[in-house]
Amino acid sequence: MIGRKHNQKQRGGRRCPHGRSNAALLKSRKIYVASKVHKDVRVPFREITLSPTVAANGRIKVNEPVRVYDTSGPWSDPEFHGKINRGLPALRRPWILSRGDVEDIGGMDVLPFAVKPLRAKPGRIVTQLHYAKQRVVTSEMEFVAIREGLDPEFVRSEVARGRAIIPVNINHTESEPMIIGRNFLIKINANIGNSAVASSIEEEVEKMRWALKWGADTVMDLSTGKSIHETREWILRNSPVPVGTVPIYQALEKAGGAAEELTWDIYRDTIIEQCEQGVDYFTVHAGVLLRYIPLTAKRVAGIVSRGGAILAKWCLAHHQESFLYTHFHELCEIMAAYDVAFSLGDGLRPGSIADANDEAQFAELKTQGELTKIAWEHGCQVMNEGPGHVPLHLIKENMDKQLEWCHEAPFYTLGPIPTDIAAGYDHMASAIGAAMIAWYGAALLCYVTPKEHLGLPNKKDVKDGVIAYKIAAHVADLAKGHPLARQCDDAMSKARFEFRWEDQFNLSLDPETAREFHDATLPQQRSKLSHFCSMCGPKFCAMKITEDIRRVAEQGMKKKSKEFKCKGGEIYQKT
Amino acid sequence: MIGRKHNQKQRGGRRCPHGRSNAALLKSRKIYVASKVHKDVRVPFREITLSPTVAANGRIKVNEPVRVYDTSGPWSDPEFHGKINRGLPALRRPWILSRGDVEDIGGMDVLPFAVKPLRAKPGRIVTQLHYAKQRVVTSEMEFVAIREGLDPEFVRSEVARGRAIIPVNINHTESEPMIIGRNFLIKINANIGNSAVASSIEEEVEKMRWALKWGADTVMDLSTGKSIHETREWILRNSPVPVGTVPIYQALEKAGGAAEELTWDIYRDTIIEQCEQGVDYFTVHAGVLLRYIPLTAKRVAGIVSRGGAILAKWCLAHHQESFLYTHFHELCEIMAAYDVAFSLGDGLRPGSIADANDEAQFAELKTQGELTKIAWEHGCQVMNEGPGHVPLHLIKENMDKQLEWCHEAPFYTLGPIPTDIAAGYDHMASAIGAAMIAWYGAALLCYVTPKEHLGLPNKKDVKDGVIAYKIAAHVADLAKGHPLARQCDDAMSKARFEFRWEDQFNLSLDPETAREFHDATLPQQRSKLSHFCSMCGPKFCAMKITEDIRRVAEQGMKKKSKEFKCKGGEIYQKT
Repeated sequence: MIGRKHNQKQRGGRRCPHGRSNAALLKSRKIYVASKVHKDVRVPFREITLSPTVAANGRIKVNEPVRVYDTSGPWSDPEFHGKINRGLPALRRPWILSRGDVEDIGGMDVLPFAVKPLRAKPGRIVTQLHYAKQRVVTSEMEFVAIREGLDPEFVRSEVARGRAIIPVNINHTESEPMIIGRNFLIKINANIGNSAVASSIEEEVEKMRWALKWGADTVMDLSTGKSIHETREWILRNSPVPVGTVPIYQALEKAGGAAEELTWDIYRDTIIEQCEQGVDYFTVHAGVLLRYIPLTAKRVAGIVSRGGAILAKWCLAHHQESFLYTHFHELCEIMAAYDVAFSLGDGLRPGSIADANDEAQFAELKTQGELTKIAWEHGCQVMNEGPGHVPLHLIKENMDKQLEWCHEAPFYTLGPIPTDIAAGYDHMASAIGAAMIAWYGAALLCYVTPKEHLGLPNKKDVKDGVIAYKIAAHVADLAKGHPLARQCDDAMSKARFEFRWEDQFNLSLDPETAREFHDATLPQQRSKLSHFCSMCGPKFCAMKITEDIRRVAEQGMKKKSKEFKCKGGEIYQKT
Repeated sequence: MIGRKHNQKQRGGRRCPHGRSNAALLKSRKIYVASKVHKDVRVPFREITLSPTVAANGRIKVNEPVRVYDTSGPWSDPEFHGKINRGLPALRRPWILSRGDVEDIGGMDVLPFAVKPLRAKPGRIVTQLHYAKQRVVTSEMEFVAIREGLDPEFVRSEVARGRAIIPVNINHTESEPMIIGRNFLIKINANIGNSAVASSIEEEVEKMRWALKWGADTVMDLSTGKSIHETREWILRNSPVPVGTVPIYQALEKAGGAAEELTWDIYRDTIIEQCEQGVDYFTVHAGVLLRYIPLTAKRVAGIVSRGGAILAKWCLAHHQESFLYTHFHELCEIMAAYDVAFSLGDGLRPGSIADANDEAQFAELKTQGELTKIAWEHGCQVMNEGPGHVPLHLIKENMDKQLEWCHEAPFYTLGPIPTDIAAGYDHMASAIGAAMIAWYGAALLCYVTPKEHLGLPNKKDVKDGVIAYKIAAHVADLAKGHPLARQCDDAMSKARFEFRWEDQFNLSLDPETAREFHDATLPQQRSKLSHFCSMCGPKFCAMKITEDIRRVAEQGMKKKSKEFKCKGGEIYQKT
């Protein structure tokens, strides 16, 4: 019973060595909440155990554990003994097969995995949007409802009206359903993927698991180098969260790196390959129209989106609209057959403060809105990508126009970053813009790492980016009043007031760093129990003094109460 | 001529060793802009040299250097050869003496310094507010105007109506005047100071210079341990920026650490001592009234301000209003005689999201407003301190109420931090709230370091806190449209578009980190010149492709232009 022992150790709260993506966080345990409707729907949470409150009179009061949203998948479950060369269990395969609308299509195996891809039966649409419109609450919707603490019917209705998406390719059966929409918890995306310059497949899988440990809700594989298909296979088979890609990158590889050599055929083959593999959403820059390109010529920073630049170059070289725009209906039909969601790219997003909210940007946004409607007609789920570099006072206009022009489809923004001069700290700077736009209504935030504009992120950068964006998303959730949002904050503040240091660490977004920082000043174990902290020292501690005040106030009340009783106990004294 | 050589080396752009507070930043040089009115007013700037633009045709175009606001004082001037045991030159002493309204009062020397303190002559008021009301544009106002690129008369009028302050104690003659008000650049404060737990005087002076190197506009000395007077003397004599304190901390030391033993006499002696030493502004928690204290009893986090807690304890113990409130007029008279500005403390600020914008907090804010008016009547300069822990959707209410109740006196906020669970990252989380409230109208932001709520900041934490707040302040300046705000952003974006990597590093808020991050991926010198970056690689680079697009577009224009000319050169063809 080796597994069991391992399990007990984990449950016992063994200190997890810093830097391991599969180690559970201290004093956290994985729990599952089962659906009462769909028997095989079990939703994971991370439960944080709290120590009891010890009152001044010595009385002990239990503090209920806190349950938080958990993106780490089976990797953090001590009962799970998988390895990355075996991949995760096919959680959703029975749900998909039970609907009877898909067929096996054979197709290629990527060693060591041997997943048989599925596709919609001819004439069938297998998207969550389609089911929602048919008034079907799927297992995926039920899963999401439990995860968010909301009503399944509400989830269905939000998906049905296109205001939220559940990105779940029928070939990514390993994924635990999650929802992206402005009436749900704000989600964050972490970009991974190797480039021509460096990094191995295993490193990328590890980076992904690392990002999920810290709370990434989706990942995008932006690989551009060799082994693009193989890298993606390893990521998909090991990812419990939706995986997005920008298929034009792989298509360009196939076209020998020359944008003008791209064709619809190359692109179509590429997306079918990725649909069969299980990619959950595609960034598609179909809104980059020929007539918008000259609008960028006078910009300070031109076109900064890679996909946008490739499409623009193609359009200029051929002097015609891109194949993404001219074949958009066909694209929708393909994606609907696998339930791959659209992430309509913003290829002309501003790349500098000077270019924010310009004509090129908003022209494309309007086209994104038109394409959104077309994709919906095909039953496809859709979100829209947004900027970019935008100063604070111009952020709201982006959100307002997107809601209006794109018919309330979820908005997925990259930051926005509200200054150009924070190189090395762009995760922080962009978290400011991200928090604001999420509060205004954005649903998914693409993280930015400290290496943005400078280089490729390493593991530390990935973590820093994820934490910065967890903060941005969480402060927006608090501001919007999501029912689950405040539980940790309230538990944290109570723990602070009661000097329960261990609980403060464990309730933090990054317990390991919180503990490490505390211990740097007051390393002794006993200080974690003592009623003061290093900022004030024992004599000056404000919270300590507040405790005294409460005691004095209580005594005062008792005294006043005694006086009151002595004087006859009447509220109004008879005169 | 050793000095001269040293100078040349610095000017030559020698790589500054990481971690030295007195080393100039690479490719930056100290320059001074002299006033045309006041001969001895010379305002320092940091000038960043840029490399030229090399067009595709090989033509070279010069890029003008960029001048930025410089807080580092003489320490970054290669012509200055001072040491911290000699202190900075008494820059403002001639200005002060020339006004003829102060007198020498003798007083104590603190070795190794021997500064003779000044005080207003009996019956005279020596504050910038008083001068401004008399329609006098002081050298200090002239200095500030050049520094901000604004009209001196505008500076005077903002000070006169109390909407801005220039914190300049007549005994802190080493300071370079700066202005705090919402129509000027947003300023940031860095807290330093040793506590009972650890840290030496030299370390604190070094921490201060370090904070100034990265852009802190003021520092607060929050020392609470032994040698409180001596530490402050070293900080003041070496500080080119205003220094604030919370005098109740030192008063409490004198009262043996027991809040209830404090008296007006102890407090008065303490502030006179600090006025004579040169402290530029005092945090005074005079708005903590007896009747407000019970309003905090049901809070999740009670009273979290140290000063607030001390005052609350005193009020409860004596069952009367605090001596700060009852002796407020006398306090004003003393502070007016040295031009020490009020920073009216928010002793009842919320310490958790759950407590934000509650009755206790706003009751005190109203009293701060009443006290502001009284202080103004005495000629004192005033700002008001604000929260604290506030969720995004409640931030604006703080700003609006402060403007209304406190008659537009500058608002000085601590963050606010919009979540309680970001321990270890509170600098980032609070920068979100700080950016927002600064955009709404706050004038001074008190930084928060990564160690907030956990321990005492070290040098790295100080830098991280300062940079996070420089970002917050700068994004607010951009949003508000300060005339100097966008120059660096625009220069940066142009440098990005033209792949001038060295310029990108030098224009960043932290050139050292930007360079280091870039070199981690592409260390070779030549990559700093190459037309692609590590994110995309040479084939995929979006900016590279945009260059191609421009070329194609230009060629296309020429072609179209040729066609146009061939067809007769008429805009509308005759049919």
